[in-house]
Formats: sequence, C-alpha cells, structure tokens
Amino acid sequence: MRYSQYFLPTLKENPKEAEIVSHQLMLRAGLIRQTSSGIYAWLPLGYKILKKIMDIVREEQDATGANEMLMPTIQSADLWKESGRYDAYGKEMLRITDRHDREMLFGPTNEEMITDIFKSYIQSYKDLPCNLYHIQWKFRDEIRPRFGVMRGREFLMKDAYSFDMNPDDARYSYQKYFLSYLRTFDRLGVKAIPMKADTGPIGGDLSHEFIILAETGESGVFVDKQWMEQDFTGRSIEYADREGLGKYFDKITDIYAATDEKHDEENCPLAKDQLIEARGIEVGHIFYFGTKYSEPFGAKVTDKDGNLVTLEMGSYGIGVSRVMAAVIEASHDENGIIWPESIAPFDVAVINLKTGDAACDAFCDNLYKTLQKNGKDVLYDDRDIRAGNKFADIDLIGVPWQIIVGPRGVAAGMVEIKNRKTGEKQEAAKDKILDVIG
Amino acid sequence: MRYSQYFLPTLKENPKEAEIVSHQLMLRAGLIRQTSSGIYAWLPLGYKILKKIMDIVREEQDATGANEMLMPTIQSADLWKESGRYDAYGKEMLRITDRHDREMLFGPTNEEMITDIFKSYIQSYKDLPCNLYHIQWKFRDEIRPRFGVMRGREFLMKDAYSFDMNPDDARYSYQKYFLSYLRTFDRLGVKAIPMKADTGPIGGDLSHEFIILAETGESGVFVDKQWMEQDFTGRSIEYADREGLGKYFDKITDIYAATDEKHDEENCPLAKDQLIEARGIEVGHIFYFGTKYSEPFGAKVTDKDGNLVTLEMGSYGIGVSRVMAAVIEASHDENGIIWPESIAPFDVAVINLKTGDAACDAFCDNLYKTLQKNGKDVLYDDRDIRAGNKFADIDLIGVPWQIIVGPRGVAAGMVEIKNRKTGEKQEAAKDKILDVIG
Repeated sequence: MRYSQYFLPTLKENPKEAEIVSHQLMLRAGLIRQTSSGIYAWLPLGYKILKKIMDIVREEQDATGANEMLMPTIQSADLWKESGRYDAYGKEMLRITDRHDREMLFGPTNEEMITDIFKSYIQSYKDLPCNLYHIQWKFRDEIRPRFGVMRGREFLMKDAYSFDMNPDDARYSYQKYFLSYLRTFDRLGVKAIPMKADTGPIGGDLSHEFIILAETGESGVFVDKQWMEQDFTGRSIEYADREGLGKYFDKITDIYAATDEKHDEENCPLAKDQLIEARGIEVGHIFYFGTKYSEPFGAKVTDKDGNLVTLEMGSYGIGVSRVMAAVIEASHDENGIIWPESIAPFDVAVINLKTGDAACDAFCDNLYKTLQKNGKDVLYDDRDIRAGNKFADIDLIGVPWQIIVGPRGVAAGMVEIKNRKTGEKQEAAKDKILDVIG
Repeated sequence: MRYSQYFLPTLKENPKEAEIVSHQLMLRAGLIRQTSSGIYAWLPLGYKILKKIMDIVREEQDATGANEMLMPTIQSADLWKESGRYDAYGKEMLRITDRHDREMLFGPTNEEMITDIFKSYIQSYKDLPCNLYHIQWKFRDEIRPRFGVMRGREFLMKDAYSFDMNPDDARYSYQKYFLSYLRTFDRLGVKAIPMKADTGPIGGDLSHEFIILAETGESGVFVDKQWMEQDFTGRSIEYADREGLGKYFDKITDIYAATDEKHDEENCPLAKDQLIEARGIEVGHIFYFGTKYSEPFGAKVTDKDGNLVTLEMGSYGIGVSRVMAAVIEASHDENGIIWPESIAPFDVAVINLKTGDAACDAFCDNLYKTLQKNGKDVLYDDRDIRAGNKFADIDLIGVPWQIIVGPRGVAAGMVEIKNRKTGEKQEAAKDKILDVIG
C-alpha cells in the first residue's frame, strides 16, 4: 500500500480525552475514531489489524472443531424474559422499542439465543457434542465509557457455546476452549494467564478469566513466577486426546494465579520470591454453567435409551476489539506501538527519504514491488513530507521492519534496515534485504 | 468438513412462512434461521457463503483503490439532525435512547458519519481523491419484513463513499464503482444490469441500480437483448485509465435498460424483438450527490491556490446479505440451490452410501483427505442415515460436484461423479476424479 493512497491520519499530540497509553496510541496512530461516547469507527489501519486478530481467533476456534455462525445484533426481549435475565441485566442493556412497540435489545451476549436456535433443530444425542461460535458486535451501555475500546459500549466479541450430554463431556469441552485460549493469545503475541473467576451474571460454578499482564491493567493479580518463565500452550496436545487434555488442564490450573479478589495472602501456597504481584487486563472469560439456560428453554435431547436429557452448556468469550488495546498496553515504547508480527498491519515499511528525487523514487518503487512479489505486505511511505515526520509516523504505527532509502544509499545500492522492537539498525545491500527481515 | 461434525440442519418441508423460493431454500438448506421478525441468524453453512460473498466484494472494492474501514452500527441522532434526514427518514429508522437519554439510532446508511469522520482529518487537496468503504450490518425497521433476507430488517451492506475536488473527478470515481459492480456481480455468478434510477432519500442527480433478472423479482424491467448476449465487465479496462473508463461508461449506459418506473413504452428506442421484458431484484445502488452532505457538515479542503472547496461526494451500496437470496432466485432447480462455484460453500461433496461399512468408510476417509490435500474444500457426508436422505440434502445445499461412493464402486475402485448444475453423472476411477472436477 502506498501511504499517499491510504487513509491513515496520524496525530502528533496525545488527545486530551485519552487517559491510558493504548487509547492515546490508537487515536494517534489512526486506528480508531470516536463517533459517540464509547463508540468507535475503525479506520483502515485499525480495521486491518482487527481482521488479523479475528482470523487468529477464528483459526484457533475452528481447530477445536467448533462451527462458526453469526447471530444478529438485535434480539427480542422475550428470550431474556424466559431466562430471567431481562430485568437482572440492568441499565447496561441497550433496550429498544421497534415500530410495532415490540421490546428488543442490542445483544450483550447470546446464551439465550443460541440455546433457542439449538433446541429448535437438535433432538438426539447423535448430534452431540456441538460447539458453535460467532464473532459479532455487542453493546453494553456503560455508565462511564472510557479507555477507548478497552471499555467501550459497542465492542467486538467472539462468543462460543458448547452443548453436551453430561457434565463430564461438558468439562471436556471446557478444557478444549481453555487450551485454545492459551494458544490464541500466544499467537496474538501476548501471555494471557488463566485465573479462577466468579461467574457473575452468566452463572455456573466453573470459570476462568484470561488476563494479560500490563502496568496499566485494571485489576491486581498474583501469579506464580512459572507463568512468566514457561510456555503453557501445550503444543503437543491434540484436542481429540481427552485424557491428555484433562491431565494438562489439571496441571496448568494447579499453578497459582489469582486476581486480587480471589487472592488470599495468608493462605497463598507460594513463597514470596516465587510470587509475582502485577496488574492485568481481562481479555477472555470462559464459563461452564450446566443447565442454567437449557432448563428454562427446555433444551433437551434423547439419549441412547430414549430418555430426555437436559443439555449441559458452557460459554466462552474473547474480547476481540479489547485485546487490541491490551496488546498495545503490553507492547509499546515512547515512540509508539510495537506490533507482534502476527497482527502487525504490514510486514515492512519502505521509507523514501526524498520523495520526488528520481533515483530514490525509482529505487523505492522497485523495492516495493520486489517485496510484494516475495509475499510481503508493504507500506510504502511515498508522501512528499519531511523525513522526520515519516520516521515518527512509521515508529508510531509500529510496523516490525523499516527499510530506509536515501539518496546516498541509492547511489551505493544500500538501504538501512531498522527493527522496530529492538531499535537495531543495519546497512544492507538491496538484494540482501530479505535475508535480514526474513 | 465431516457432515457428522457440522451443524447443518436441513428441513424436508417448505416452511409455511416462506413465500419465495430463495427464502424457502435458505431455511430448508440450513443457511439461516429467523430469530425475530425480519432478523436472522446465519447458521454455519449460510455464514460460510456470506463470507465468500464478502471476500469477493472486498477484493473488487480494493481493486479500485478504495480503503476498507468499519463504522459502528449505533450512531448519534445529532449527525442526522445536522443533515436534515433525522425526521425525513421516518419509522424505518430504528431509534434508540441510551441510559443517559441521548438519542441514538441503528444506522441504515452512513453518509453523515463518514462525512463527519473525513472532514475531521482531511484539510488539503493533496489527500484527495479518497474512497472509503465498509461492510457492516444495517437496520431498516420495515413495516412488513418478508421474503427472508431479501427484505429483512437487520441486513449486511457494503457501502462506499467517494470524496473528490470537483464534479469531473467525482464522476470518474462514480465510473470506477460502476465498473467494479459489474465485475463483482459477474464473479458472484449472476448478471446484474445497471439501470438509471431515482436517488430517493440519499439525494443527488446521477444514480444507477444494479438489477439481477429473476422470475420472482420485485420489479418489472425492460432491457436490450444485448445485455444477455454479451460480457460487459470491461475486462481490459484499468481503473487508472480515466479516458478509457469514461468511454466504456458512456457505451454501456447507452444500452437500454430501465425499470418499469422509468420505462416509457412510446419513446423506447428499441424494436420489440430487441427488447426483453423481465423481472428483477435490486442488489446494488450507486449515487453521485455532489455536496448534499459535505455542505451541511462543512467538509471542505483547500485547493492548490489556498481556496476552500466543498467536497464532491458519492455513495455506493451492495446488499451483501440480499445478494445471496438473489443468486438463489436466479440459480436453483426443484431439488435445491445450484451455487456458482465462486461462492459455493464447498467445492465438492463426498457421499458415503454405506457409512459403517469398513471398506466404504476407509475409501471415503482416504478420498476426503486426498481431495483436501489437493486444495479442495470438501463436505464429507459420513452420517449414518439412509442414502436417499444424503442425496436430497446434498442436492438441496447445492455443492457443485458430488462424488458418490458405494460398496460396488469401492470393490472396483470406481466412484460416480455428479455435476449439480447439469445433473450429468459419470463413472470415474479414483485417481481420475480430479481430472473431472478440475
């Protein structure tokens, strides 16, 4: 993409309304723009990154055997009256009356709807287990939206729902999602630590939050040092290996990790030097809630003997838009964002230090095309502005590699390559660039 | 995908509420399920197809140089009061009051919001032209939703917006979208004919509807026979070739095509035997409306001489969810849907006629893997049900190729291959399958 043909408006100053660094950087780097309180438009660069996050989430959900679908944003209030959550949900639910005076709402979550859909098709144990997920915009009418997309009102969530015949099978489903979440966040370039959690309005008795450590995190957390030292993504485990997955789950959940609400200093099993005290941001939450929704909705199937069995369910959420902010909180410096390669908006930026100079332009045009031919997604900064502004913008938006092209280098057939994360710079001959950036 | 592990519930009977064939088939083939009047959940098969349509729309928009972004569903009423459309839009607009008693709405279109976003960043002619689009759910509170997703309330639309310095440049943008629409619908496997249209509540004086011919179409159309006989996708034209594009546009728009509202029998320039009278479904609509929104929003930039110029704008919509229904109206038979290959949910279905038979299972498992290794997206019907039901389901969901595997064939190393569209069947040796299905 040529920068001159891309709608990528950056800001030099931190907007006053932004209190935390991810919010500041998302506004400054031209990722988002607020259109109403707590509601954001995703500008081209921000949406490009959001789609990359969605793709990773989707791939890891698919790997568990879950089927992707899409439920609508607007739901009938009737469903929520059936489950008893319509009144319980309070003012955070955006309630709507349509032209025929029917009570509707903008869905904050989908337990009711998915249970209703599922039960209308599925009658037999033969169709179980079943796992369905969707990635859809939700609305939560926060009384005081803030921190940008971290606590916005309209937000993108991946929510999955599992249907099983009995608690044992349901726990197996739960463990699959548990593993898939560790893998998902790992691929997003962050370490998310699962912590035992309260179930709140969703219900149930087994629940974990997945929390990314970041200085600006909303809650205090206490975790075993091991979490930071080891890889817990269980690379060798297959989802079909029920026994192996169960052992893995028991092992991992035995390693201490608790939010300050759950942490009990007196009874903490860890020595002080083994315990890390930090702050964290919740990016995922999983629940096993048994028959809480299947019971009121009458979601039952017949078992092998013809008996009616009420389905055991769980739900599994990832804050897809929020995780982008969390990644930035965990990965930035004073110059801007440092994207993990997996979700970086471009692989590499080519910075033309002297746009308008025939030799520089020709060199850059050629380099741009060569990199594209080699499968690289390239942002080519061909703008006719000062080099200093280009450096600042490209640092700000956090592309992993920068290739800097100036008149002296062009004459010698050389470029400068900068790694955004380490800040390291090196000279390279034109035909050696791919050796450096991989 | 193994059918046994896929949430793909088909229905044998036509649901009573479905009046037109696309609605019947979308319900029966397990593509959608109504969750409230005019609001649908997209089941896994339907959503898979919808994503394919989105991808084609996206690729053709990107090819014009447009940048993808994403605006939120919920908008502030203030924007619409500024443009004067808040009252004008009537009861089709879903109006919402949030917890702080602010007037909001579920966006039916985005002219106001995009103009507001654009003007807040762009000040100079150097940043023009600019084309932005998004694919987002919209809401239109139809008094009587019907025909499934053809006239639903929550629907998916691609809407693009162009910003130019003067009417000439704006017409060039308009022509780019015009061409991109012909290419988009062609790739979706349907012929959409552009017809001069009224601009309605969007405004402006230049507008075309893109209409797919189908017997069940909502409006009558009159088109020159040429439309059916020739390819008008202008394959050789580059978007950068302004002059060539202009000539092409003049040539194409000169070929007669009119909805019954615009058709004037007495003054129609065509001989009767050159005129086709048919019915059609609108799937796209493009508008050039000049300064209708930029004027009230004060969206101006400075030109080369430092003068302030009010932006010339256009907007360009494709009914992404609706087009799926339109494709079905145009491409089905008495047994079900016939998907164009470009948006078929799977490339090929493997039908195991005797699930449970060791030889058939082994043969099919092997074939399933081999086809996948060759890049085919395969639906493997491994369900333990009667063969007749499998034939009916696979015909119904419209996969382009069926590979039918039975005990006799397995013994001989042969399969039967059926083309869904033509109904032609042929025998083939296992290692010749790819020669047939391509």
